[in-house]
Amino acid sequence: MAAPQIIEADVTWTGHRFEPSIQVVTSNGLVERLGALGLVPTKKLSGKALLPGMVNVHSHAFQRGLRGSGDLFSDGSGNFWSWREAMYKLASELDAEKFAHLCRQAFSEMLTAGITTVGEFHYLHHSGSEENYAMDAAIVRAAQDVGIRLVLLSAFYNTGGVNKPLSENQQQFKTDSVEAYWDQWDELCSHLDENTQTLGVAAHSVRAASLADISQLHRDACRRKLPFHMHVEEQRKEVEEFRADFGRTPMSMLTQELDVSANFTAVHCTHTSAEDMEQFLAAGGNVCICPLTEANLGDGIPATPDIVAAGGRVCIGTDSNSRISFSEELRWLEYVQRLHQEKRGVLVGETGNVARNLFEMATVNGARSLNVQSGEISPGFNADFVTLDLTAPELRGADPDTLLEAFIFGCGNSVIADRCVAGRWL
Amino acid sequence: MAAPQIIEADVTWTGHRFEPSIQVVTSNGLVERLGALGLVPTKKLSGKALLPGMVNVHSHAFQRGLRGSGDLFSDGSGNFWSWREAMYKLASELDAEKFAHLCRQAFSEMLTAGITTVGEFHYLHHSGSEENYAMDAAIVRAAQDVGIRLVLLSAFYNTGGVNKPLSENQQQFKTDSVEAYWDQWDELCSHLDENTQTLGVAAHSVRAASLADISQLHRDACRRKLPFHMHVEEQRKEVEEFRADFGRTPMSMLTQELDVSANFTAVHCTHTSAEDMEQFLAAGGNVCICPLTEANLGDGIPATPDIVAAGGRVCIGTDSNSRISFSEELRWLEYVQRLHQEKRGVLVGETGNVARNLFEMATVNGARSLNVQSGEISPGFNADFVTLDLTAPELRGADPDTLLEAFIFGCGNSVIADRCVAGRWL
Repeated sequence: MAAPQIIEADVTWTGHRFEPSIQVVTSNGLVERLGALGLVPTKKLSGKALLPGMVNVHSHAFQRGLRGSGDLFSDGSGNFWSWREAMYKLASELDAEKFAHLCRQAFSEMLTAGITTVGEFHYLHHSGSEENYAMDAAIVRAAQDVGIRLVLLSAFYNTGGVNKPLSENQQQFKTDSVEAYWDQWDELCSHLDENTQTLGVAAHSVRAASLADISQLHRDACRRKLPFHMHVEEQRKEVEEFRADFGRTPMSMLTQELDVSANFTAVHCTHTSAEDMEQFLAAGGNVCICPLTEANLGDGIPATPDIVAAGGRVCIGTDSNSRISFSEELRWLEYVQRLHQEKRGVLVGETGNVARNLFEMATVNGARSLNVQSGEISPGFNADFVTLDLTAPELRGADPDTLLEAFIFGCGNSVIADRCVAGRWL
Repeated sequence: MAAPQIIEADVTWTGHRFEPSIQVVTSNGLVERLGALGLVPTKKLSGKALLPGMVNVHSHAFQRGLRGSGDLFSDGSGNFWSWREAMYKLASELDAEKFAHLCRQAFSEMLTAGITTVGEFHYLHHSGSEENYAMDAAIVRAAQDVGIRLVLLSAFYNTGGVNKPLSENQQQFKTDSVEAYWDQWDELCSHLDENTQTLGVAAHSVRAASLADISQLHRDACRRKLPFHMHVEEQRKEVEEFRADFGRTPMSMLTQELDVSANFTAVHCTHTSAEDMEQFLAAGGNVCICPLTEANLGDGIPATPDIVAAGGRVCIGTDSNSRISFSEELRWLEYVQRLHQEKRGVLVGETGNVARNLFEMATVNGARSLNVQSGEISPGFNADFVTLDLTAPELRGADPDTLLEAFIFGCGNSVIADRCVAGRWL
């Protein structure tokens, strides 16, 4: 457990702005109190700004292994489905050791990018023909090795398409039943570090689980007060096929059949209709958008401005980890909409401030989705921080009133100077 | 003048692929020869890949001063025109010293990003009410101080809109006449470093110059064998207003009235019609796209795939320098189209390889637009290089066949390890 600290940076993000002369007192891995307390700091961060660490809601760490090769197109071009074949091939080549290696790579890069919490949406449970869950324990250890906070969203996966059996190359993802899911889930609890690791629940998608199983898992998650995550409507084709077969969209089925509330995070929603989205948001659901991955995969342009205008909670994921940079994710979430609408300042939200709204997505909203007490520097919250190097060339000229804008719109990962998880500086 | 060198990296980009065991011999700031020559290197770049330095075709360095503040929206949101007011305000606050300071900042960041040549589209000629061209000399010195290769595209600017006088806040951009333009241009020649600096010609836009003056400047540029650059059809509003007034678009006027050829670079072309673009490309023109800036300004989505499919030469500019990263520019040039078309591998071009095609835009095509012998590692070309750090975390797992993809789709600036301009390592 990290020793008590009194931290003082040149400026500290207090939720609405950067303030000077703030001391942050931490103990037992938590923020105890903060303010202009007149205390002598035990950790002085000169030339730096202190911010809450960012929260990455949706990652498949092993897909880091496709960086580079995933953008070679032997047939000239490709689409989501041809990319999925390459991803299945990678998965088939991984044993627990190779898998853990890729997880450590991805998690390290996330810390470099200022991400201190990752929601790992984990469905690659088996190695080759092995029935054991060696990959599950490997991912928990990888996060411990690297020091990042982990919310392991263990994913239920047992159909190969709507009402279809698993294909050969999907056997590695297999969960036998909801009962088997919970047995493995409870077993995993014993592997966790209590200060930095928790578990959540995921159903992969309507492609990979029946409505009955999704409903059961969701009820169980609510009863246990756990976050529930699911891929929803990433590809136009899956929405159209589902509607043709069942007369309603995946999202309308979910909102009609499940008791959606604030613990539900729908990932992507690239092709969700306005009407379905309205229902989902009214029920309290969160939407996780993954700008870099959705762009890399050619998913399409989501109706993010409508979600924000309706007061919906958008959070952010690095998903396929083809490039890991949260400032880049945030600016392009906004930029894609600027290009689409031909105006500037689209995702303004309630604050009237784009950068602040984007940063809340990367912190407060992400923490809400994953049910972790992170994402803000407040008493009782995790002592999860990052610092910006105020002497970095990219930030030259910024003052406290423009620092957040300069970071989000002007910088890469290199301005992130320090990371702290549960009071431990990494 | 840099001493002769024999350079050997682990792998070297030879135009189509990365090859091992290549020695590059340089002298007098140029590449003399290269190949598996069996020579003992005088500069061994272990753990690194050697690539041609990248060419930034379109920059307004001083706009670096808007980073951060340019993304605050006091009215809730904004557009290109409200941004332009902020830019005018910044311009009005600059004297030659402050201007040079911003230029050095921008040029330094460009080198960090692997850019070794910048085409500076320069129209802020005067400081306050001063009639002198103090800013022109300052920009030349700033590039020399930093060490980047400069093509100064001195811009003609003397109307404040089509057939309108300059407004008060445009006086700083003023050129009195085409004759005065060339007098100043010839005067500037005496300030240049002969190894790393050249001059080109620019007419700001149809908003800022009459057809008669544009035509004269373009004829002069052709006669003197100089590159000619111009902003063309960045904003829908300017295209529509021009067409309403004159019965044709700016681009159709240019292709009809000017003898467009390979020295002509049209910057942006965000709203250029398919028919106009076909004419322009058939005449040999280049198109410079500025993905980060066009996104930041909410310009719109250009028809880049049509330009590439027609064999058009696309090159890249950092323009407003709100964020300076060429790998990010390249991936988002492709990604915006993936999102728009909902497929992967859009800008494949003749090579059938997206990353290679994008990298040619950032190197070969840029050099063509600026008329510099850079952008490839070939005998007689400038010894302008960058290296990639093959041990960087972002590049882990890449091999020579996927290294270019991993760089363009997976990395920020931090993987750029070294820069060399005219044989001088910076």
